[in-house]
Amino acid sequence: MPQNKQLILKKRPNGHPDEHTWSLETHPIVEPNDGEVLIEQHYISLDPAMRGWMNEGKSYIEPVTIGDVMRAGSVGKVIKSKHPKYQVGDCLTGWGGVQQFVTTNAENWHKVDTTLAPMYLYLSTLGMTGMTAYFGILEVGKITKGDIVLVSGAAGAVGSVVGQIAKLKGCRVVGIAGGKNKCDYLTHELGFDDAIDYKSENVMLALRSKCPKGIDVFFDNVGGDMLDAALVHLRRHARIVICGAISQYNNTTRIKGPSNYLSLLVNRATMQGMVVFDYADQYAKAANEMGQWLAEGKLKSKEDIYEGIENFHETYNRLFTGDKQGKLILKVKQ
Amino acid sequence: MPQNKQLILKKRPNGHPDEHTWSLETHPIVEPNDGEVLIEQHYISLDPAMRGWMNEGKSYIEPVTIGDVMRAGSVGKVIKSKHPKYQVGDCLTGWGGVQQFVTTNAENWHKVDTTLAPMYLYLSTLGMTGMTAYFGILEVGKITKGDIVLVSGAAGAVGSVVGQIAKLKGCRVVGIAGGKNKCDYLTHELGFDDAIDYKSENVMLALRSKCPKGIDVFFDNVGGDMLDAALVHLRRHARIVICGAISQYNNTTRIKGPSNYLSLLVNRATMQGMVVFDYADQYAKAANEMGQWLAEGKLKSKEDIYEGIENFHETYNRLFTGDKQGKLILKVKQ
Repeated sequence: MPQNKQLILKKRPNGHPDEHTWSLETHPIVEPNDGEVLIEQHYISLDPAMRGWMNEGKSYIEPVTIGDVMRAGSVGKVIKSKHPKYQVGDCLTGWGGVQQFVTTNAENWHKVDTTLAPMYLYLSTLGMTGMTAYFGILEVGKITKGDIVLVSGAAGAVGSVVGQIAKLKGCRVVGIAGGKNKCDYLTHELGFDDAIDYKSENVMLALRSKCPKGIDVFFDNVGGDMLDAALVHLRRHARIVICGAISQYNNTTRIKGPSNYLSLLVNRATMQGMVVFDYADQYAKAANEMGQWLAEGKLKSKEDIYEGIENFHETYNRLFTGDKQGKLILKVKQ
Repeated sequence: MPQNKQLILKKRPNGHPDEHTWSLETHPIVEPNDGEVLIEQHYISLDPAMRGWMNEGKSYIEPVTIGDVMRAGSVGKVIKSKHPKYQVGDCLTGWGGVQQFVTTNAENWHKVDTTLAPMYLYLSTLGMTGMTAYFGILEVGKITKGDIVLVSGAAGAVGSVVGQIAKLKGCRVVGIAGGKNKCDYLTHELGFDDAIDYKSENVMLALRSKCPKGIDVFFDNVGGDMLDAALVHLRRHARIVICGAISQYNNTTRIKGPSNYLSLLVNRATMQGMVVFDYADQYAKAANEMGQWLAEGKLKSKEDIYEGIENFHETYNRLFTGDKQGKLILKVKQ
């Protein structure tokens, strides 16, 4: 039987993780006890939120403990079972971490149907990523037909789904992304009405010409200057969904707060944070609807899949360099 | 008949207004035409928002035009009437500006009953100030019994009413104010549960000890470091009411945005701006309830009244030095 390669958190990073942050270690696979399964992991999810999980201190989830396996969402196949509910061959998704095998009582894992969609899709549009987009734009953004919706990180895993859902609901959708390729992808392939390339355009000026009537909903994955630019263009009663702030996660100095926040007052607008876990009891319903849209070709899901647990760090970096398109996934099954 | 002394906006201030910002001019009183009244103004309201009205650019209200009478809420008595609805002797409140007399068609003015409360109270707890507090804490803050409520600028016109309403609704209320006298006033006279003196205490540390369970609602009149400190202490699903940011109004550099805004995400919290005008159709109902509370001694209204239109600038400065307690009012009737 093969050994288990595990990525261990060794040190809390200051700024970007470096070669001291993690170490790849090989340990014997732990045999399942009664009530447990052994899962061979196929794919792990790479998310900007990982950066936050390595910081010490209070957040929406406990930080990863030094010496523990790095936290990650994952999907894999049961290869041994002493669990009453799961059989060998079942595919499960849960928090398996950055490792090849996981032995677990499967609490908080759930079974996925690989006849409906490939396994990795349950880390993408049919997983946390899709759920974040779905509940963020519908429940927090409260979009209605005709709204003008702006999305930052629009070519990313969450942003691309947010924009497409907003289109499905009859909104005008403008995305901000880095580079011509990503912007073309938004307008040509995903049906966005317009795109702003923050690498070649001044976002503040571009918003003036591309959202001349202002913004009803801003779904923000980026923070920093983009949030400030969006604030200046709010319409009355606008909603800002704070989903993330990837531009600020690796700061070694203080986070840049939105200087233009008094636009909330002027425009009677709302800025609200969200964490997808709060909607867990509605995941099934949302996945159903998203699955339907995917099947009908109304929603496109794009994954960027790399291979090999030993390439984790390099792949992780793509989250922050932007050198990827859609959902970033690492295949860890050998 | 006396002349009309008027305070004219001459120049947009950069930072604090100075001797070039306004000039006090004397002009003949304008006789009312058909459908108009001539009002002798008794009191004008001084509000931090005045600073914003002098800036150029888009806001929730048009900026005061250079050469116009400085905008101010006011209350006075009709001394001539060619208006079908109002008689000589009626007391009206409206936007009379910083001047002794105003000739108007009385659109957007309304009659007040000086047998129920002294005239100046209609600029204070029974006027915009009270309405801001009432709708801000109840409609935007959405307080419910048992909430932990933090108020900045708590000894000020709006903050002191906010805190008292929150107490009436069964909340635990902590106020932030400048100086021992103001803090004592909050806890000894207004019934606040606790107070933080930002002049002698570190607000961040004080919040840790005085709101150890965190904050459900923060009603912010101040912005800057106080907003950042409050963000760190939010409870899950907290609401921040952005009513003002007096610490930032005279900035000559960029406004300080809240660096800790990602606490909104972590705590699934909401930050929402408000402008009292949106609740105009409910003022009467609110004034009724507030009047009842005042009559029953459940709500205390404090006014700091100065005299003489020629003392406007000096009185205005007290808004920003904090050298006043409660609602700042200038008596302009000679």
